[in-house]
Amino acid sequence: MSQHILVLPGDGIGPEITREAVRVLEACQAQGLDITIEHDIVGGAAIDRHGVPLADETLERARRAQAILLGAVGGPKWDTMEDISKRPEKGLLALRKELNLFGNLRPALLYPQLAEASSLKPEVVSGLDIMIVRELTGGIYFGQPRGFGEREDGTRYGYNTYIYDEKEVERIGRIAFDMAGKRGGRLCSVDKANVLEATILWREVMNRLAPEYPEVELSHMYVDNAAMQLVRAPKQFDVIVTGNMFGDILSDAAAMLTGSIGMLPSASLNEHGCGMFEPCHGSAPDIAGQGLANPLATILSVAMMLRYSLNAPAMADRIERAVGRVLDNNLRTADIAYDGTRQVTTREMGDAVVAAF
Amino acid sequence: MSQHILVLPGDGIGPEITREAVRVLEACQAQGLDITIEHDIVGGAAIDRHGVPLADETLERARRAQAILLGAVGGPKWDTMEDISKRPEKGLLALRKELNLFGNLRPALLYPQLAEASSLKPEVVSGLDIMIVRELTGGIYFGQPRGFGEREDGTRYGYNTYIYDEKEVERIGRIAFDMAGKRGGRLCSVDKANVLEATILWREVMNRLAPEYPEVELSHMYVDNAAMQLVRAPKQFDVIVTGNMFGDILSDAAAMLTGSIGMLPSASLNEHGCGMFEPCHGSAPDIAGQGLANPLATILSVAMMLRYSLNAPAMADRIERAVGRVLDNNLRTADIAYDGTRQVTTREMGDAVVAAF
Ligand SMILES: CC(C)[C@H](C(=O)O)[C@@H](O)C(=O)O
Ligand SMILES: CC(C)[C@H](C(=O)O)[C@@H](O)C(=O)O
Repeated sequence: MSQHILVLPGDGIGPEITREAVRVLEACQAQGLDITIEHDIVGGAAIDRHGVPLADETLERARRAQAILLGAVGGPKWDTMEDISKRPEKGLLALRKELNLFGNLRPALLYPQLAEASSLKPEVVSGLDIMIVRELTGGIYFGQPRGFGEREDGTRYGYNTYIYDEKEVERIGRIAFDMAGKRGGRLCSVDKANVLEATILWREVMNRLAPEYPEVELSHMYVDNAAMQLVRAPKQFDVIVTGNMFGDILSDAAAMLTGSIGMLPSASLNEHGCGMFEPCHGSAPDIAGQGLANPLATILSVAMMLRYSLNAPAMADRIERAVGRVLDNNLRTADIAYDGTRQVTTREMGDAVVAAF
Repeated sequence: MSQHILVLPGDGIGPEITREAVRVLEACQAQGLDITIEHDIVGGAAIDRHGVPLADETLERARRAQAILLGAVGGPKWDTMEDISKRPEKGLLALRKELNLFGNLRPALLYPQLAEASSLKPEVVSGLDIMIVRELTGGIYFGQPRGFGEREDGTRYGYNTYIYDEKEVERIGRIAFDMAGKRGGRLCSVDKANVLEATILWREVMNRLAPEYPEVELSHMYVDNAAMQLVRAPKQFDVIVTGNMFGDILSDAAAMLTGSIGMLPSASLNEHGCGMFEPCHGSAPDIAGQGLANPLATILSVAMMLRYSLNAPAMADRIERAVGRVLDNNLRTADIAYDGTRQVTTREMGDAVVAAF
């Protein structure tokens, strides 16, 4: 039976990058991948049309899909909206929460062809290959109570709740231990257990799981130190597992170590292997519609989709190899172009990947 | 009248680095600075002696002091303590909170003599000079309620509260605007206002203060983007202001950009100019007692003390110039040594600074 894929382009460069990724998906279809591709809208685009960043019908469609391909959401047009529940980002957060996509995989991989793009010295980052496993449906992003209040003297305050329970930590821990077992066998759990109770529990649960994964070496690191170590000597890491907020910060820092955030995909999975796949970068409204955006992160997100949700690892490999060939051929979008390479548009890059597939 | 200085060496390398910094303080005394120097213990050392990381008498002494010089606290010996209230770090946190040291200044300054130490490319970091202003007595570090609980089905959870009120934000905001006014005139406020209510309030208050500081250009950045930008192009920043947790992470990342965290001091100030001064680095128990530690961050913390709490800016300048001369003379502790420099011990580095003063 054909598997449903829902494409949600979103805002800014979202439409143009997903367009190229969908072409790659269609190339897979032509090669026998049995999928049905549907389209809908989310984020600012949905606010403009429906008044909310995620319409009920869209959420229903998403529930029925095996996998979602998302571009990026947000932009200055919606940044001034007073009501936080109506911001484009809430569409994304609602999808994560409602579909229970707690397992966020964010690889930070340096392509040898793009080594020069990094702001770090070549010897510090060459061969970099980190997988960050971020918990995505808990922690301070969703903790209750949250909101605003007023003290007796009229002083206003804003507050959020950082909370994790054993089950939430255990399920993300298992994903991370499994991932480490399949990779270099080293898992670093990042917390702030010297200050925050929520992360003391986190550390406890990670320690409790460790004996079940004798092939994995578990270590712990405080988040401030992890931020330092990512800058100082990032190759010490294999798999990093951490909560929603720390994962947001560290995965972006790790991505930027490669110097080419336009190359990095991500996967967000639930317990049944359904997932949402999106580039790590944002909606870059400043360059939207100009053919400057790099579609490779979104195309590589399709590869993650094939690997993690559609059980088609061989096709995933083929896409990744096609991207490698295109880079070998010196094709570059503006963000990764430098002297001696050939600068191409978003569409031309998509063409090249499809041709190399 | 003589001003009281309280020295709290702490754990690990704390005693050896503060010893050298105190010698510099004594050199200032010999040049006419009217101070009285007292000593006490904190952190693991205090746990071993008193059973608590900060004894009441020590806190009383700290309250009477105009300034505190702190080494570093913590170490593996106390890491396994079940009771979080008895950890060495709690001594530090209690000092910050009890003395109301809400204004944490963390410079990330690249010494031209040490440019090679950075893991970033020279052109990305040369001339780097960022001041991070971190709120230090609020946010998730101290928010109530906090602790552990159990759901009906027996699942345990841990939780913390992230909370800021207008007054807390306003007073740290003013420190940051003032600082930006005295420096490059640019202030970047870091938050996660697209997700967290506590930081929506933060952003509101920063915006409200801005018109009072027409000479300062205020911008806002999400914390994940800030972590990326620090890696990508750190010189875009002049002053960064942020909350306690984000400040912990970003200031460590920024410090590591310089490659020589053994060089970076910090100040934590209250509304009356009393302050605690300490190196940015930790207690490095692995190298304690071997004469390998770099005392310069602690010596530079004395310079911050002179500038911010003792109203002796000229002497602060003299210390900073003395450190510069010692580096010019190629003297290096192990952490910053490389071929062609002269490696010296902690004590020898202290000698050299005192001689150059
Ligand atoms: C857009 C925003 C809500 C989101 C997050 O903070 O999770 C983004 O930064 C990400 O990392 O996917
Ligand atoms: C030791 C720890 C409690 C402390 C903090 O998190 O504030 C340290 O990391 C710092 O930044 O001074």
